Amino acid sequence: MIEYRNLRIALLGGGNVGAQVAALLIEHGDELASRAGAGLELIGVAVRDLDAVRTPAIPRELLTTDAESLIGGADIVIELMGGLEPARTLILQAINSGADVITGNKALLATHGAELFDAAEQVGAQLYYEAAVGGAIPIIRPLRDSLAGDRVKRILAIVNGTTNFILDLMEREDATLEDALAKATELGYAEADPTADIEGYDAAQKVSILASLAFHTNFPLDAVYREGITAVTIEQVEAARKAGYVVKLLAICERLTDESGVDGVSARVYPALIPAAHPLAAVHGANNAVFIEAEAAGSLMFYGAGAGGLQTASAVLGDLVSAARRHVIGGPGVAESTQANLPVLDMGSVLTRYQITLEVVDQPGVLAAIAGLTNEHNVSVETLTQSAAGSGDVPATATLVIGTHEATEAALAATVNALRTNQVVRSVVSVLRVEGL
Amino acid sequence: MIEYRNLRIALLGGGNVGAQVAALLIEHGDELASRAGAGLELIGVAVRDLDAVRTPAIPRELLTTDAESLIGGADIVIELMGGLEPARTLILQAINSGADVITGNKALLATHGAELFDAAEQVGAQLYYEAAVGGAIPIIRPLRDSLAGDRVKRILAIVNGTTNFILDLMEREDATLEDALAKATELGYAEADPTADIEGYDAAQKVSILASLAFHTNFPLDAVYREGITAVTIEQVEAARKAGYVVKLLAICERLTDESGVDGVSARVYPALIPAAHPLAAVHGANNAVFIEAEAAGSLMFYGAGAGGLQTASAVLGDLVSAARRHVIGGPGVAESTQANLPVLDMGSVLTRYQITLEVVDQPGVLAAIAGLTNEHNVSVETLTQSAAGSGDVPATATLVIGTHEATEAALAATVNALRTNQVVRSVVSVLRVEGL
Repeated sequence: MIEYRNLRIALLGGGNVGAQVAALLIEHGDELASRAGAGLELIGVAVRDLDAVRTPAIPRELLTTDAESLIGGADIVIELMGGLEPARTLILQAINSGADVITGNKALLATHGAELFDAAEQVGAQLYYEAAVGGAIPIIRPLRDSLAGDRVKRILAIVNGTTNFILDLMEREDATLEDALAKATELGYAEADPTADIEGYDAAQKVSILASLAFHTNFPLDAVYREGITAVTIEQVEAARKAGYVVKLLAICERLTDESGVDGVSARVYPALIPAAHPLAAVHGANNAVFIEAEAAGSLMFYGAGAGGLQTASAVLGDLVSAARRHVIGGPGVAESTQANLPVLDMGSVLTRYQITLEVVDQPGVLAAIAGLTNEHNVSVETLTQSAAGSGDVPATATLVIGTHEATEAALAATVNALRTNQVVRSVVSVLRVEGL
Repeated sequence: MIEYRNLRIALLGGGNVGAQVAALLIEHGDELASRAGAGLELIGVAVRDLDAVRTPAIPRELLTTDAESLIGGADIVIELMGGLEPARTLILQAINSGADVITGNKALLATHGAELFDAAEQVGAQLYYEAAVGGAIPIIRPLRDSLAGDRVKRILAIVNGTTNFILDLMEREDATLEDALAKATELGYAEADPTADIEGYDAAQKVSILASLAFHTNFPLDAVYREGITAVTIEQVEAARKAGYVVKLLAICERLTDESGVDGVSARVYPALIPAAHPLAAVHGANNAVFIEAEAAGSLMFYGAGAGGLQTASAVLGDLVSAARRHVIGGPGVAESTQANLPVLDMGSVLTRYQITLEVVDQPGVLAAIAGLTNEHNVSVETLTQSAAGSGDVPATATLVIGTHEATEAALAATVNALRTNQVVRSVVSVLRVEGL
């Protein structure tokens, strides 16, 4: 057992994301420690109400209402309270006490980002915020590091899951805006007061963060042009469909030169038509996607769940491992990570599905023979299609397409081998695996 | 003018990617320096043939055939020669002389990765390799850092552009494998000897790198199960289409438990059917995409150009800026980057397109009036659709949908305002911007 230096982690906020972060930190502690090169000890969770019901539950002895004292003893502070205050004051306190900070607070970053980054730079602390945009989708690091040698020209993004869910329902089920919003509320995609989402404020915060990163420019929130989706009608959505478009709430930022020749940047949020063949048109439900056009890299797209407690917790914990690695001298850097050292299993163990096309003798009992053979090899048939029998031959030939249920590669390969030598099989025409189900 | 510490950059290889990296380093030097916090001086490019024609051209005075001497004077070495030797020996020399190394050499990493990472760890050097998988698509950092707090369950990836181009042509134009391969060769997507691509060796190298990263486990190349696309027939592709599938060469790695209960990992490459509605089915041409299923994050997809000199250069330069930042004490860390400080332009400067739906008086001269009005505002009409006139009214009402060419927001907004007060316009029914063209 390797002995790690212990890093003390303070969590501010025990809401939807906070509770998931706490649970994963406790449950996967050893695994995260081996990746970080340091023990990650959750020393406490600051909440407003000790008795609130949380899912998953947080052990009572970790809860405290005294955020300031909690921060005092922490190496790394995770802020998941949301809102501007007291989040801003507490993060500044954490930075000034020398802690690194992880936050998913887009409103705070969009409003007071420059102040927080300056404070961190003064003391050499780091501020991580992968969870602030696009939930679980890695977008901050790709923009900050992977594209650091390129020039971003434009970003078109769907960064608000609630409005995408609503517009998608209007598009796919001809729901009115009101009905779609009601459905979103019922399913928990929209909050009781949906203003921040449907009026585009949430998307505006996120695009100001993206624009700042992409263009290496502090992009103030109040410079983001913003329209929400409340004026979008079912007639517009239908007309768009007929014309080959889909209506999406787009968050856009781009570099452009204005009419007087000034090279600058713009950021904006509005419902817009995009061609049905555009990759963003295929982003359904509450998903998010960020489509980046860069000078050298060309077009890139990042897609995934844009919200959700568990999903967002993934981004927070990725930041936590990164922050912890930075604390550990001699810890793993950008290079490989082989602490898990799992055994490599051979192909026979893999579970997959086969689609097998056969030419068989077209006579009674063939299907029973084939079914018996697959059964013998513990392979279960999901679909079986027999095409019209051939004409001239005696006995005639039929084509049989077998789609199997999931089985081990070993069982499937043995099945195909047995089919090859079976009397009723004239030939095995095609064998392909089926993936992505 | 800020004075930066200069970092000395040695480039090994002046091929397709190398020549682009050299050109961008020279052309965007100041911009990259401001992002890295250090000057990036290209001290030389080691090549085999000083007189080879390169696109873009590399200044003659930078070329040398003496890679070893070049490495001796470098802070950061970029290896883009490809192949196992002398790349392996030169990278080890660079690491042992204390340089950080950036490489896009998937064959070398898949074959000798463990040796290189060990050597780097011994001396505290870093090995960056974003360009090794998926060309310009950021995938190494997201797996290494953003998902460091999650558990990857499975990766399904299209990581070989040549075979995707071929299979896509078979799917979309009913080309035979031979014809599609000939087309790929003609367009430069396939090499004179296409074996590495079409037999799946290239994809196998990449999936061994992905598996190692995703599962924190050294995944040896020879443990990757591999089948190429040479046995895929046009009949299989057609049958797949009819059944609602697309044939793709998939690189797959996953965590699984075998029948004896061993928890391990598998990696494999083969042509497989995936459902037509799966996001990977929409990856066309020579593009690449990596679809990741993680325990907390859910499903994520990363999409973009998988190859190409300029595109891959983007990944190399991203690594270079990251490596340089690490060299600079007090340089920017994970936080924001505001060195560009570009002006924020207001909405009026933005170029966009409008789709305007009007109800107009259905009488002669209306189209001319509308056309005159848009002309006055320097807005040019791209499409104009007039629907059947209304019945009862006198004069009758017609619906007019105007799609504009690109124009400034200011001009477009002024056009809509003018339309609202124009005599022939009964009402402006809908105004939506069109994006993503």
